[in-house]
Amino acid sequence: MDFSEIVKSRRAASFFDPSKPVPQETLKRLVEMAAQTPSSFNFQPWSLVALENSEDKARLRKLAMDQPKITDAPLVLLVLGDRDAWKKGSEPFETNFDKMVEAGMPKEQYGWLADTAAKLYGQSEEAQQAFACKNAGFFAMSLMYAAKSLGLESHPMDGFDHDAVKKEFHIPDNYWIPLLIAVGYFDRSKEYPKAKWRKSFEDLVVAFS
Amino acid sequence: MDFSEIVKSRRAASFFDPSKPVPQETLKRLVEMAAQTPSSFNFQPWSLVALENSEDKARLRKLAMDQPKITDAPLVLLVLGDRDAWKKGSEPFETNFDKMVEAGMPKEQYGWLADTAAKLYGQSEEAQQAFACKNAGFFAMSLMYAAKSLGLESHPMDGFDHDAVKKEFHIPDNYWIPLLIAVGYFDRSKEYPKAKWRKSFEDLVVAFS
Repeated sequence: MDFSEIVKSRRAASFFDPSKPVPQETLKRLVEMAAQTPSSFNFQPWSLVALENSEDKARLRKLAMDQPKITDAPLVLLVLGDRDAWKKGSEPFETNFDKMVEAGMPKEQYGWLADTAAKLYGQSEEAQQAFACKNAGFFAMSLMYAAKSLGLESHPMDGFDHDAVKKEFHIPDNYWIPLLIAVGYFDRSKEYPKAKWRKSFEDLVVAFS
Repeated sequence: MDFSEIVKSRRAASFFDPSKPVPQETLKRLVEMAAQTPSSFNFQPWSLVALENSEDKARLRKLAMDQPKITDAPLVLLVLGDRDAWKKGSEPFETNFDKMVEAGMPKEQYGWLADTAAKLYGQSEEAQQAFACKNAGFFAMSLMYAAKSLGLESHPMDGFDHDAVKKEFHIPDNYWIPLLIAVGYFDRSKEYPKAKWRKSFEDLVVAFS
């Protein structure tokens, strides 16, 4: 599907057809498309928890303002941002370094990479949170475009009790959950959402003096 | 351009042709495509500072690890995430509410929107930073895909002194700068970057017990 068409037609869908599951191969294709997302030093500091069974979705719905789309959608993704993936010694850091060396980076750059990442992401809680959420934001946006390109609808959601969801699904402390995404096929008995207002070019491009 | 093709072919380009500017109408089209990005309650908490002249780019390069692509690329975008856009009384909150009312939301929901946003984003520095950076991440990812769809290359960059850049370009305190993006046409005398490793489906979809 043409990207300009996706941009024009993608909406946060509120009505999913509960009778149409997302086939496993479609889920795989969705995730593999989004896996190509760029990230800071290629750390890919993101993971997904995929909820597909009714009980799991019901547990989530209770902690997410009782939103019906959570149980209507056949698939709900918890998007996780890893706040520690830049740290020397962490699994993501070490795996990424090994892969960089395989691709031709001299091993001697280990210290440079570790120090640079620590300087950029480790100097404050703010920087660490920005690292996790910005990158997970890239990944989530890719998932939403990829969903549309595969004929699926998606709905990004912030309306949930962050700490309670973390606890309920045993998410380790290094992760932040920047959003949930409901994914599925649109319920064709409902009206597809209209485009919402968006900022103009003039609103968006600013300068300060 | 087909989205699956964009996903496959997009790279973080390191070499830009300094002799090929990004025409103003292309910049406008780029920003207008990305403007369709979804966001938390449609707050669209993002803005761009577009640097196109050599002096501005040289000022930035000094604060960004002296990266040559900053001055080679005809266009460098500072992506700004607004940490206050969810706050009742802020310009983004009030504009968004007015537009929602225009679209049919009852005026009586003002209190609900203000309270819900404050509950989700205002209870901690972490939540506020996540709000700004996650949403700005969505927007930045859209910009990178839109660039590719328009025949442009992009390079997201974290290697800069956040506070110094904020000061140098007089960015107000409510903003965080999650990244810079260099944009331009590829320098065809150079080799286009190879695909880097990415996590597999099995790496990405996790469960914790």
